[in-house]
Amino acid sequence: MTKAHQNALDSLRRKLPGRVFTDEASCFAASIDNLRLSFAPDAVIKVSKASDVGVALKLANKFKIPVTPRGAGSSATGSAVPLKRGWALDLAGLDSIKIDAVARIATVGAGAVTADLQSQAEALGLFYPPDPSSKKYTTLGGNIACNAGGMRCVKYGVTRDYVLGLEGFLADGSPFKFGLPLKKYVSGLNLRDLLIGSEGTLGVVTSAALKLLPKPEKRWTGMFAFKSEASALKAVVALFKAGHNPSILEFLDRQSVGCAERYTGKVIFEGHSRSSILLIELDGTPGEVRKQRKALLDFMAQCAVAHREARSEAAAEKLWQVRRTCSQSMFSLADTKLNEDVVVPLEKQAELIRYTLKLKKEIGLATPTFGHAGDGNLHVHIMYNRRSKTDARKAKAGIKKLMQKVVDLGGVITGEHGIGLAKIPFMSMQHSKAELAAMYSVKSALDPEGILNPGKIFEPFEVWEHEPVDVQLPWDHR
Amino acid sequence: MTKAHQNALDSLRRKLPGRVFTDEASCFAASIDNLRLSFAPDAVIKVSKASDVGVALKLANKFKIPVTPRGAGSSATGSAVPLKRGWALDLAGLDSIKIDAVARIATVGAGAVTADLQSQAEALGLFYPPDPSSKKYTTLGGNIACNAGGMRCVKYGVTRDYVLGLEGFLADGSPFKFGLPLKKYVSGLNLRDLLIGSEGTLGVVTSAALKLLPKPEKRWTGMFAFKSEASALKAVVALFKAGHNPSILEFLDRQSVGCAERYTGKVIFEGHSRSSILLIELDGTPGEVRKQRKALLDFMAQCAVAHREARSEAAAEKLWQVRRTCSQSMFSLADTKLNEDVVVPLEKQAELIRYTLKLKKEIGLATPTFGHAGDGNLHVHIMYNRRSKTDARKAKAGIKKLMQKVVDLGGVITGEHGIGLAKIPFMSMQHSKAELAAMYSVKSALDPEGILNPGKIFEPFEVWEHEPVDVQLPWDHR
Repeated sequence: MTKAHQNALDSLRRKLPGRVFTDEASCFAASIDNLRLSFAPDAVIKVSKASDVGVALKLANKFKIPVTPRGAGSSATGSAVPLKRGWALDLAGLDSIKIDAVARIATVGAGAVTADLQSQAEALGLFYPPDPSSKKYTTLGGNIACNAGGMRCVKYGVTRDYVLGLEGFLADGSPFKFGLPLKKYVSGLNLRDLLIGSEGTLGVVTSAALKLLPKPEKRWTGMFAFKSEASALKAVVALFKAGHNPSILEFLDRQSVGCAERYTGKVIFEGHSRSSILLIELDGTPGEVRKQRKALLDFMAQCAVAHREARSEAAAEKLWQVRRTCSQSMFSLADTKLNEDVVVPLEKQAELIRYTLKLKKEIGLATPTFGHAGDGNLHVHIMYNRRSKTDARKAKAGIKKLMQKVVDLGGVITGEHGIGLAKIPFMSMQHSKAELAAMYSVKSALDPEGILNPGKIFEPFEVWEHEPVDVQLPWDHR
Repeated sequence: MTKAHQNALDSLRRKLPGRVFTDEASCFAASIDNLRLSFAPDAVIKVSKASDVGVALKLANKFKIPVTPRGAGSSATGSAVPLKRGWALDLAGLDSIKIDAVARIATVGAGAVTADLQSQAEALGLFYPPDPSSKKYTTLGGNIACNAGGMRCVKYGVTRDYVLGLEGFLADGSPFKFGLPLKKYVSGLNLRDLLIGSEGTLGVVTSAALKLLPKPEKRWTGMFAFKSEASALKAVVALFKAGHNPSILEFLDRQSVGCAERYTGKVIFEGHSRSSILLIELDGTPGEVRKQRKALLDFMAQCAVAHREARSEAAAEKLWQVRRTCSQSMFSLADTKLNEDVVVPLEKQAELIRYTLKLKKEIGLATPTFGHAGDGNLHVHIMYNRRSKTDARKAKAGIKKLMQKVVDLGGVITGEHGIGLAKIPFMSMQHSKAELAAMYSVKSALDPEGILNPGKIFEPFEVWEHEPVDVQLPWDHR
């Protein structure tokens, strides 16, 4: 640390007494996210009120100290990691949740946990749809920074679709309000949506006004088996053509299912071992759900080989357990999982699955795939053993090929995780030089000293050259 | 025109033969929008294919020539007017519409007309909800530039909520794709949403991928009379509290209704002359609509003094005619209508109406108000005679006071029209200096030569010092 940075840190301690930590445990905890690469900050600021952020940024901007905001650290891409040291800005303390049930608007601190908002909204008959799989841990600030998705996007959209207003601080410590808790707002340039998904590179959000919906009265869940991925994904396309409007539409390929069946020693659909699976949720009024269910079962009678319905919440939970088992059991194949979150047009999903099978043969590594087939958002995994340099090399080559295929199919390299560090190598596949230059010019305009989450999105980074740390994180299932 | 600009124009003519016009009629047509201030361009470029835009911008950027994109010119704020001369870029020729009924995505040219997309979507059982009142004329590019709203926002949101991907050209003529026709996309900074609502100041959109919804099977319309604005707006708040989810919820104050009743010589609700009115649409499956209708009528029995239902499309059209008559009849009060599109929190609407009545007394000018009460988005009008300098001065003072009141109530100065020229004087009421500087830094980053729609949003402009032209525009009803 330079003398100037040390002075700035001393000044920070004076201004935010009891909120600045430099001990090893605090710095290690703030050094990682779910990508599990560790880069320790010089200090961790545990924010206790929004204005702390302004104080920290004012100093940081003056002394050109990197600042990396973080929530729960569940980012899959390294976006919450203080790559260039400096100060980690821990926003978990800003965890307030207030709900206006008339306006159907929640005002939340950046550190409020997604599942907490959901349960408080439900208690009032309301509904906050975005549901990233780590929702019991993730903060809403983190969800906003990454524009998080989840399973209900097919009907309800992503985090962005629920953000009305953001409050926070610009790089120089000036406070901002972009958008307000209103249903319509078109005054000036829309920096609100620019900040959403910007992974803490443009400003620091301290609170948000979020739109809530009336809670659906009823939900129904069904699970359908198909002979092949092709027939399952053909059914997905036909389903939309026929006007169905499911609230969840999840897909599991035969590799994922086979893996779970070997791992548990149980066949999911008796007599149909290693099927490809669709898991479907319908919601609405009881009458609507009844009508939708009938239409769906009639439709599926033409194409699925077996099905199972949940007639209670507990039975539905059992069906969702199948999805989770598939995800967990993959670690019986190898110790390391590359989890990509690519998106392709709906009718190109079958082609993408064919490509994952071709890739499997080519690189000799398993490529189990599941995900949000109603959005074209598939989690393609490549499983490999970290200690094997050959496997790591093959996995790396495989991912690059996969990403190029996705772009060639008219898709995008990330649908809900963001870029962070992990996806930097693929940015030039997705975006032209002019597009990247335009993005970077905006970054420089809002953060001229380059202090906000430096090293992310834009700068070259080879994720493969860094060794992940072995650490148990709260959301680890195994 | 300078010699350099003349050379650039000659070069443009060679590169875009038959698409560059400098005759008086073309320049006049491109000199105005619905604000009716006229600023003639040096030339009009009638774009026939997207790449024309790149050609024009490359030249314009090199020679620092102002470029003002326009669609139908129905903007209410002057955002489509070439204030600083230069080239008007007429995008109406890019009017293609393609619909993928499976993915529920429309790909449209910037010049495609909103109502055309709606009718083509409906023919396929689909639905494009944004419905600005000028939808028979407005282009989708213009809707995107202004993030247009309309009546169905209360349930279905605004234009932004339907934009998946944008294609177009940056200020220097480089092509861009921001977003793709996919349901999820989080790669890089979100310049797509930054462009939406930026009124042509950051880049020129040539085509867009728009999300479509399944078309609601059934609609129902009802009209309710209230003793006062306060009781009507109290009902609006209570309605949401009770969990109703109307697809339209329009409000008319007693000034608007009284004006229509005097103008037509007919009372809208027999025995309840000069009522305040709510116009409500419900939509969904027939079963849902039936259930909603019953709940709504039960609810309204407690607070409305009279009601009327539409049992057919034609009957519904008759109810909507009431809304249109109110709007048109205002011109019987005075020749000039200031139409503001402010938004306040739902529970503050009654207070805003009280303020419009206070203002009416204070300035001695009528302040009839109607609008989208489900969004808190009210069109407050001040009616005055243009030839009277006293009235104009009073109207100007009144609007400034109104805007300050709106901001004080936690609202926004514009909910669906945008800033353009007309709202520039109120920008500093809404946004802090730091927020405005952040917006302007983004503008400068993406348009360093300042050629795109110069003079709008950021530069001082006193709309009152300019005389509107008397011209008949396609959407004029009187």
